[in-house]
Amino acid sequence: MLSKNQIKYINSLQQKKFRQEHQSFIVEGAKSVLELIQSDFEVESLFVTDDFYKENESLLEKQPLRAEIVSQAELERVGSFSSNNAALATVKTKGNQELFAQANEYVLILDDIRDPGNLGTIVRVADWYGITKIVCSKETVDFYGPKVISSTMGSFTRVGIYYTDLVSYLSNTSLKVYGTFLNSANVHTIQFAEAGYIIIGNEANGISAEVERLVTDKITIPRFGGAESLNAGIATAVICDNLRR
Amino acid sequence: MLSKNQIKYINSLQQKKFRQEHQSFIVEGAKSVLELIQSDFEVESLFVTDDFYKENESLLEKQPLRAEIVSQAELERVGSFSSNNAALATVKTKGNQELFAQANEYVLILDDIRDPGNLGTIVRVADWYGITKIVCSKETVDFYGPKVISSTMGSFTRVGIYYTDLVSYLSNTSLKVYGTFLNSANVHTIQFAEAGYIIIGNEANGISAEVERLVTDKITIPRFGGAESLNAGIATAVICDNLRR
Repeated sequence: MLSKNQIKYINSLQQKKFRQEHQSFIVEGAKSVLELIQSDFEVESLFVTDDFYKENESLLEKQPLRAEIVSQAELERVGSFSSNNAALATVKTKGNQELFAQANEYVLILDDIRDPGNLGTIVRVADWYGITKIVCSKETVDFYGPKVISSTMGSFTRVGIYYTDLVSYLSNTSLKVYGTFLNSANVHTIQFAEAGYIIIGNEANGISAEVERLVTDKITIPRFGGAESLNAGIATAVICDNLRR
Repeated sequence: MLSKNQIKYINSLQQKKFRQEHQSFIVEGAKSVLELIQSDFEVESLFVTDDFYKENESLLEKQPLRAEIVSQAELERVGSFSSNNAALATVKTKGNQELFAQANEYVLILDDIRDPGNLGTIVRVADWYGITKIVCSKETVDFYGPKVISSTMGSFTRVGIYYTDLVSYLSNTSLKVYGTFLNSANVHTIQFAEAGYIIIGNEANGISAEVERLVTDKITIPRFGGAESLNAGIATAVICDNLRR
């Protein structure tokens, strides 16, 4: 059974302030926790239901940290999921380490993505397309929030995140910097460089004026119907798919 | 000011049961309401803030229906948005009219999409790529729910929806039926036919076995990294983008 202090601690990690204070975050649900315990993240505590334990016994017994058995109701009480019959972990965050594109690598740049579900989806899309580094403006939503982590569907274990000032970051690169704008080069026909940066703009305002000045190649996803825009996660996927073909 | 009966009626439309009973649904927010009043939907009642009225006066004065001025607090009390300083309308639903692909047309088929945000995103993506018909299994979430409508960002006005039994529907076509599976034909290299159907599967279980039997062409979105899957809206966008290039 969870103690009062454990309940209070886990609950507190739903808030960014306490995640930063404790340098910890919550991972919930079967898929995410299974990816977590096979990753290089440092698990602080692990709570699982009896059923989840039995189903994953061999994997769980290999863990340095012993899982505590709790009820589904307890998992739902401390976590953010309305339904969780599997597992919840508290995990140490990673430091904010600098990430740059290597000579044959693409890195995503997020210019103020505010919606946690969008950030999670972008991380999952990046992981699908083999992009392992994402650089975020300081105003981008916190990567370690429960909604972001759960929306990544486990991809948070494979994609590194670095928060920084985008203008100074991009001022120092000699690689191509791609950004999506209206009436620019058709993403279906352009030839992408070997390496570079792809900027995804804010949900409401797109790419900011300061960052736009550092874009070397403006690109457009061609439109065939009436919608005014695509959401940020969708645009990321379409650009990455064109990049990889 | 809204009357008690108006409040009760609008609130009730957040539930599918009452939307079906009254054959009406809610449209909220500036963008959606502006697209609505320029569409062929029949608006039943229209509530706007003073500011929204002034900003859109010429358009609103052309409407057959007079807009009632209400406060932001009233809009938020009756609607599903936590913040709405613009407008809300109640609107007649359209009948469930049969939709089929014409000789040069693609139609999306949704095999049990359960999440309202996913359905809304799929409608918006379809609209971007010029697909104006979507056929849904009977278990697919209700198109007229407030979360679906708002996620379409106005595209609900340009895309027709038809709920039916997919197995009988697909049994009668001679066009190609594409569906996404693992280890099938690469969507980057296949040659799409002039017309056909594209099936998007359920979020957790993919395309059902009964529907899979009616797929003529199995396709795969190639993966370059570690993520196990893409979400339904993302997969729709990537397939449509490949179809249109």
